[in-house]
Amino acid sequence: MNAEIIAVGSELLTPYRIDTNSLYLTAELNRLGVRVMRKTVVGDNREELREALEHALSYADIVVCSGGLGPTVDDLTRETVAGLLGRKLVRNEEILRSIQERFRKFGRAMPETNVRQAMVPEGAEPLDNPRGTAPGLWMETNGHYIVLLPGPPNELKAMFENEVRSRLSRIAPKRRLYTRDLRVAGMSESDADNRVAEIYKKYSQAEHTILAAPGAIQIHPRVWSEDREEANRILDDLVKSFGLALGENLYSTTGQSMEEVVAHELREHRATIATAESCTGGLIAARLTNIAGSSTYFLGGVVCYSNDLKTAWTRVPAEIIESKGAVSPEVALALADGIRKSTGAALGLSVTGIAGPGGGTPEKPVGLVHIGLADEKGPKEHAFRFPGDRERIRTQATNAALDMVRRYFLYAARPKA
Amino acid sequence: MNAEIIAVGSELLTPYRIDTNSLYLTAELNRLGVRVMRKTVVGDNREELREALEHALSYADIVVCSGGLGPTVDDLTRETVAGLLGRKLVRNEEILRSIQERFRKFGRAMPETNVRQAMVPEGAEPLDNPRGTAPGLWMETNGHYIVLLPGPPNELKAMFENEVRSRLSRIAPKRRLYTRDLRVAGMSESDADNRVAEIYKKYSQAEHTILAAPGAIQIHPRVWSEDREEANRILDDLVKSFGLALGENLYSTTGQSMEEVVAHELREHRATIATAESCTGGLIAARLTNIAGSSTYFLGGVVCYSNDLKTAWTRVPAEIIESKGAVSPEVALALADGIRKSTGAALGLSVTGIAGPGGGTPEKPVGLVHIGLADEKGPKEHAFRFPGDRERIRTQATNAALDMVRRYFLYAARPKA
Repeated sequence: MNAEIIAVGSELLTPYRIDTNSLYLTAELNRLGVRVMRKTVVGDNREELREALEHALSYADIVVCSGGLGPTVDDLTRETVAGLLGRKLVRNEEILRSIQERFRKFGRAMPETNVRQAMVPEGAEPLDNPRGTAPGLWMETNGHYIVLLPGPPNELKAMFENEVRSRLSRIAPKRRLYTRDLRVAGMSESDADNRVAEIYKKYSQAEHTILAAPGAIQIHPRVWSEDREEANRILDDLVKSFGLALGENLYSTTGQSMEEVVAHELREHRATIATAESCTGGLIAARLTNIAGSSTYFLGGVVCYSNDLKTAWTRVPAEIIESKGAVSPEVALALADGIRKSTGAALGLSVTGIAGPGGGTPEKPVGLVHIGLADEKGPKEHAFRFPGDRERIRTQATNAALDMVRRYFLYAARPKA
Repeated sequence: MNAEIIAVGSELLTPYRIDTNSLYLTAELNRLGVRVMRKTVVGDNREELREALEHALSYADIVVCSGGLGPTVDDLTRETVAGLLGRKLVRNEEILRSIQERFRKFGRAMPETNVRQAMVPEGAEPLDNPRGTAPGLWMETNGHYIVLLPGPPNELKAMFENEVRSRLSRIAPKRRLYTRDLRVAGMSESDADNRVAEIYKKYSQAEHTILAAPGAIQIHPRVWSEDREEANRILDDLVKSFGLALGENLYSTTGQSMEEVVAHELREHRATIATAESCTGGLIAARLTNIAGSSTYFLGGVVCYSNDLKTAWTRVPAEIIESKGAVSPEVALALADGIRKSTGAALGLSVTGIAGPGGGTPEKPVGLVHIGLADEKGPKEHAFRFPGDRERIRTQATNAALDMVRRYFLYAARPKA
């Protein structure tokens, strides 16, 4: 079963906005066994939209449209679909009442223009919008299905979940898409690709997407199958092979983020952590505290940009900074040990480096980063040399620091609890 | 002059990847007076690509394709375009040599498959790729132009800058697009919209896009004109009207980020700053240190999640935390004042709040955030109630805190330097 996704809105043809709804819609459609063949973005223009709809209906079983359901004259999706299918627009009194009701709730009178939103092509089923005034529409025509959804992502998602998913699953094929979400750290995309190339060949029934961000790689194997158990067996096998090929670089097989994995390990070991950051400027603390309930393991952190504060907050001896430089293995070690001791955390994590663009020297170039990790036995340190601009270097340093904590627990004793 | 942008690649039809090249391409095309009428994403499929190209060539003056120029059998753009236009593919020896050279530089032999990348449709101009092996192509057919670019964004951008921009500007119309990039803080999208609605009406020759992110709004007025001076006059007038309507909520008319504006003010006033964060967990420090050279004004910051560390690092009296609670105006004031004094910074900025999802009470609900700012005269505090989930609350709190620093300088004395 095939689908096309059409996003409607002139703002999506400017340099400032991108259609992200299609990612959500694709995931949902795939899960129901529907393959997305094509995505189109058109402006608020009757002819362009009509042409796009016509083409999509010429081959796709399902056409999902987002946007253009608002109350203004720019919102043309309803009229255009009705015109294309030769159906009349009829005012739906129930929808009108619910729009009026919504305005009343917010203490406002409904503007006359909103009557447009109550117009429904003959034979279409309205889809309730709990988060806005624009109702969606579900239509069938010659064995093809048309789904019209509002553009705002929160409205679109709520409507899909409440109204569309169940309708689609009634018509969806038995052949569904099954996926895994693997996360890899500590290696480049081409290194990862080389290590798993043989697996791709062996499991030719699976499709793969590899997605590389600075310091983090995602691999998504996908299997289309009518047999859920068969698909999951193949994927489980595949994941096992990936595990052997990638070793401890594979940090999640369920799409967890690095901070989620680290949070899990800290909780599991009843350990606490504190951070002392220089070039990452708070990004590590921000990632660790991204997780709800992080106060159980994250005590706090310092961002010590100035050398004085490195000494004041983590007791790094000023002599070390002076003799070795702020960006040095010695300072990374002292920062990690110092923050651990001054906060009483089980682990102290530190980063010092040169994020650039200025400040590099031949001996200490831009991208050089030292990461330290201390436990009760003392601190250890690793040096990295990251490529890219300031933002990429900071992101890679943050990922590498969190990954160092994750790897620490791979070798740490299991909790005695 | 009209264009269509076609992105080619099956990975762009999965839930994991989105075509972002089209934002860059749209900005560049608009600047040359070319309007983007439609964007299409197709998979690595000959028929789909052929159909998309055919439709685009039926109306668009310029068709820009990204992706599908790699060396594998999946990369079909060259062959499909040649087939559609009825042109032979000819091996270009110069391109072949340069691909071989590139492999030699990295100490590897060129795989046989890469010969494909040296195949050029008759009459096409190859576009040099300084960052990869895939050359681009520039073709003319019946008064339409086809531009084939590689998919990786860094290769696409370099090729556009070096090879495409100059070719396009030779054929581009006199009528160009002129824009401004306005940034607004401290109000909701609908508030901003209401305040500027009259301006939209008055300047009907301008188009507007409004883009809302948590705690930050962008407004992009755009004017198409043959007359550069005329367009800039209209836009300058428009920006002045926006300034009157939005007041001090308008923080940039040149697309600067909030941290850039704050950095500018701090430098201008030769002021330094230090931060004490609780619920924002380091995000404010991370934003401030996002800017190259931030060490001149940012001394450091603490993320004091535990109450003990609030007292240890910023000398917030434990009695205040106990009697008023960690999330209270009093603690925000004490944190701001404490971090200022303990670091010797000119300004101390603090945040304490409840980011959720847990931890809320009827008196102190999720989303309640107190922000404190201290100078030598003492600390001040503002309370906010932000909607949304943990991530949105943290982002809005970060923006509001940076905005408080910006507003402080609106009323501060100009530097005496």
